[in-house]
Amino acid sequence: MSLTTLLFGRRLASDEEEKEQIGPFSGIPVLGLDALASASYGPEAALTVLLPLGTLGLRHIVPLSALIIALLSIVYFSYRQTIVAYPSGGGSYIVAKENLGTSAGLVAAAALLLDYVLNVAVAISAGVGALVSAAPSLLPHTLGLCLGVLVLLTAANLRGLRTAGLVFMAPTYAFLGCLFAVIAIGVGKTLLQGGHPAPVVAPPSHPATLGTASLALLCHAFASGCTAMTGVEAVSNGVPAFRKPSSLQARRTLSYIVASLGILLAGVAILTQAYGITATEPGKSGYQSILSQVVAAVVGRGPFYYATLTAVVAVLLLSANTSFADFPRLCQLLAIDRFLPEPFIHRGRRLAFSYGIGVLAGLSAILLVAFHGITDALIPLFAVGAFLAFTMSQAGMVAHWNRIRGKHFRLHLAINATGATATAATLVVIIASKFSEGAWISTLLVIAAYLIFRSVRAHYEQLDEAVRAHQPLDLTPPPPPIVVVPIRRWDLVAQNGLRFALQLSPEVYALQVILDDPRVEDLSGEWRELVEEPARAKGIAAPRLVVVRSRYRRLFRPLLRFVTTVAHAHPDRQVAVVVPEVVESHWYHYLLHNHTASILKWLLLFRGGKGIVIVNTPFYLYDAPKAA
Amino acid sequence: MSLTTLLFGRRLASDEEEKEQIGPFSGIPVLGLDALASASYGPEAALTVLLPLGTLGLRHIVPLSALIIALLSIVYFSYRQTIVAYPSGGGSYIVAKENLGTSAGLVAAAALLLDYVLNVAVAISAGVGALVSAAPSLLPHTLGLCLGVLVLLTAANLRGLRTAGLVFMAPTYAFLGCLFAVIAIGVGKTLLQGGHPAPVVAPPSHPATLGTASLALLCHAFASGCTAMTGVEAVSNGVPAFRKPSSLQARRTLSYIVASLGILLAGVAILTQAYGITATEPGKSGYQSILSQVVAAVVGRGPFYYATLTAVVAVLLLSANTSFADFPRLCQLLAIDRFLPEPFIHRGRRLAFSYGIGVLAGLSAILLVAFHGITDALIPLFAVGAFLAFTMSQAGMVAHWNRIRGKHFRLHLAINATGATATAATLVVIIASKFSEGAWISTLLVIAAYLIFRSVRAHYEQLDEAVRAHQPLDLTPPPPPIVVVPIRRWDLVAQNGLRFALQLSPEVYALQVILDDPRVEDLSGEWRELVEEPARAKGIAAPRLVVVRSRYRRLFRPLLRFVTTVAHAHPDRQVAVVVPEVVESHWYHYLLHNHTASILKWLLLFRGGKGIVIVNTPFYLYDAPKAA
Repeated sequence: MSLTTLLFGRRLASDEEEKEQIGPFSGIPVLGLDALASASYGPEAALTVLLPLGTLGLRHIVPLSALIIALLSIVYFSYRQTIVAYPSGGGSYIVAKENLGTSAGLVAAAALLLDYVLNVAVAISAGVGALVSAAPSLLPHTLGLCLGVLVLLTAANLRGLRTAGLVFMAPTYAFLGCLFAVIAIGVGKTLLQGGHPAPVVAPPSHPATLGTASLALLCHAFASGCTAMTGVEAVSNGVPAFRKPSSLQARRTLSYIVASLGILLAGVAILTQAYGITATEPGKSGYQSILSQVVAAVVGRGPFYYATLTAVVAVLLLSANTSFADFPRLCQLLAIDRFLPEPFIHRGRRLAFSYGIGVLAGLSAILLVAFHGITDALIPLFAVGAFLAFTMSQAGMVAHWNRIRGKHFRLHLAINATGATATAATLVVIIASKFSEGAWISTLLVIAAYLIFRSVRAHYEQLDEAVRAHQPLDLTPPPPPIVVVPIRRWDLVAQNGLRFALQLSPEVYALQVILDDPRVEDLSGEWRELVEEPARAKGIAAPRLVVVRSRYRRLFRPLLRFVTTVAHAHPDRQVAVVVPEVVESHWYHYLLHNHTASILKWLLLFRGGKGIVIVNTPFYLYDAPKAA
Repeated sequence: MSLTTLLFGRRLASDEEEKEQIGPFSGIPVLGLDALASASYGPEAALTVLLPLGTLGLRHIVPLSALIIALLSIVYFSYRQTIVAYPSGGGSYIVAKENLGTSAGLVAAAALLLDYVLNVAVAISAGVGALVSAAPSLLPHTLGLCLGVLVLLTAANLRGLRTAGLVFMAPTYAFLGCLFAVIAIGVGKTLLQGGHPAPVVAPPSHPATLGTASLALLCHAFASGCTAMTGVEAVSNGVPAFRKPSSLQARRTLSYIVASLGILLAGVAILTQAYGITATEPGKSGYQSILSQVVAAVVGRGPFYYATLTAVVAVLLLSANTSFADFPRLCQLLAIDRFLPEPFIHRGRRLAFSYGIGVLAGLSAILLVAFHGITDALIPLFAVGAFLAFTMSQAGMVAHWNRIRGKHFRLHLAINATGATATAATLVVIIASKFSEGAWISTLLVIAAYLIFRSVRAHYEQLDEAVRAHQPLDLTPPPPPIVVVPIRRWDLVAQNGLRFALQLSPEVYALQVILDDPRVEDLSGEWRELVEEPARAKGIAAPRLVVVRSRYRRLFRPLLRFVTTVAHAHPDRQVAVVVPEVVESHWYHYLLHNHTASILKWLLLFRGGKGIVIVNTPFYLYDAPKAA
């Protein structure tokens, strides 16, 4: 078993796709972690914005969460419909492209890709941040830990979707189990103690009220809280990853994910208000995350507290996985439509889109390294992409129903129209309240990506135009080519090349360039005896020898000049350059060579000009007598 | 004027060699700096060893210096004779090889090359060390400064010998002028004041006497002082670099260098004793170099002191240049004899041996980076190489005179025999007293280099044996090759390849490998219409289509397997693989390609096996209609 097999498992055949398909149980770890993990930072983000209000802010958390959950439900019903309508994968790109036009699709795709890349960097960095704040001795290794997690995620995904699902299952269900238990106990206590339960561990004291709730502040809090919804579109994009019947399995998975997220958001909001928990200033001493405060208040700081917080950190780290599942899939769709380079199309060893996985890992690694593993500065760039994609997708579905019509189409249309309006409104709020913080960068990046897609497509179209041919093969025999054979000295390597050259054409030039090596001799003296006389004896045209003394010790320039001069002199004929090359048996022997043949082949290909054909006659040193 | 011309000057023709040749005036900066600079560290090294003796040590410096100067004179007369006997360059390698056999020559060459590399690293690092101790704010940039000086030296040498000579002339003559003046003034004062002159600035007080002068200690001091003699062989190796009459010019240059060095060594010894100057502990606070103490004692710490010390630092930095002049020249001689790879033979743009200069710069850079710019640890490795080479060269000359005989041969023989004996004895002293400090590493490195030379030569001989041919060209026409054309789809690129294939042979296979790209169609349906019918109409054999569906999405494996299967089935015939390739007009367009053609050419060359010929038919996108 080779090392690759050990690391990545055996290569899967294209028709073994089913083995890598997933059901709802592993679908949640693969596609749902982004959405679920946001339950831990969405409420926190909203409460942090409300910090200036002190205790007053607590009043707003339940209504704000209710608004977000309502929005989530609308988006949920919209995406359920999308999954039914596009059973072969209805990501925002496909839906927007098919119903609103290619440009709309590309904008949605650009927005999603941006969000996926940001999600990987931010999720890993947040998870490692939580880990490091629990064990401060790890602080100097922040970047190393981030990259380590990235490598783990990349490897798991290169092994295929099933492996990723299996590996990430335990932390996912531990996370859900623990948090559900905390919420159940907390809500139970709240009900039993008349809405004002006594905390087991009291949360930090409230800061003084510093301001009043302006509409702008509430909008900002709402916009920040909406980061809780990123990742919801992942399932609709990944329908083909599910077992048959894919559409049903995908809908089930989406339902479970959204229901869990809704319970988490509602539970956290209720418990925060009941226990009077406010955000603490992040980055300052005494900082404690909202979830940590909630769990401590409900069940105290026992082993269960630590188990829950461990699961939260694990899920934060792994929530980057949603991007790994969807980014490469979206890239494949774009590549099939020629908006991205071709390698994104092909599935790798384990039927995962290895190239896309690699590109995602590379881009995230660049972000992590550039920000030294602390990506707080990237958070404001977030959410714009997700809501832009949501809006495009919903608007696309509205156009879809309007076009398709059919049974209950008005109801479907109404649901999607509500979704589109709600997400569009949210998008406006997000951009308006976060524009100067970084949303403008997201906007620029989406535009840049759009332009790249367009220019990649334009280049491919130009290339297709240039090489397109439907006509049958033109078999008019062209005149024989003029053949040039660069030779160094009279040896078997040169003879090998010359013999092949004579098979190509009767018009062969042997070109010897003499530099300043005192050991190399001009062949003109011996040419008659070595070549011309044997050729006359066989009655064939002898190759002509051209000796060039390079006064400036240049090898390639005289060679190229000869070839291009011949080509210009005979515009109607091809010029074939036969490059003899010694092939060694060990790589390190190439240290002893000057790589003339490789450089010459490269130069002829890229600088030779039209009508040049390059023939490479290898001479195998390790099997010389037979090759001769 | 291009950037390269601006940086390195115009390219020189091979017959413009004279323009780059030098006389004694620029010969001293080019070939003499190593020897001259050692006047500043040789006495220092000896005195540092004598430190434990305190004031008692002063007694020994004049006799030790006298011994070193006597040895220097012997070596000088020996090398004068060598230059006359070997007017085309009589380095230790040539002299030992011609008179004592190849192995002796290679040992001498290995020893010299090692010393040259060490000299570059140690000289630059010593110069920068002196600079940094004068301006401690530069300390954090030690490595950067070292590499900067290395780049300067490399660039000056790549521009050719004359440029190097001109650039380094001013510091060289400033160094000689200043130090001669100091010695003249100092010796004058000593004579006028009866042997005990009053210092202008008193040297640091003497440490207490801690031990007595054992023979071992004196030997160690002598061995350390002998580093003053490294670099003396440089002129004899570089005779061809001089203007005609080269031999005379070289002898003159050697005389000037050795005379200057003798004066410096004698002067420093006399003044050290007269002023009672002892070494200070290097690396400890209060450290002051011997030269600095001498200059301060003789002329005080005025502007002249600083000018002199600046010149000393400059010459230390530039003394690496001797290596740059000789290392590439020795490598060329070894490469001509096939003990080193071929690229060392060719002269670059300015007739300097650019490849050797580059290799020397690279090796020194590795040493400097590995030791963070502080190469004290390398100093004990030094001098072994120089004295090994001296001994080999002198012994070779003894054999030479014994063989040649002629006028006064006994005198010549006696001079060289004295030289050989003296340097061999010194070598034994050096190895014995410095073995555990690092001389054992030098010994191992010389052995390693020797083995490398031998194995390079063995490989070249094996290669020559395999490709050697003196017989005339065999023109028996071989059977036409079997041609394989890998094609992706039916386009002009594929047609281009197929048409060329049909010129090669009537037996052509078009091979289509189908992966998992949904856009690629199997060509079997259309082959009849596209290829077979036109071929039948023209009465020629149609290329056969082979479609391979790659279940595991592998492209190259099925291609290679097909080619090798065909080759094995027809061991008597060549298999030509025609690789069609699209050539783009801009490099960045290659980001959109998957480089199939390049990878395939590479695999066929190195994995194809014997009898494979690779034909590359480029399709130029920027000139498509004409290329078609």
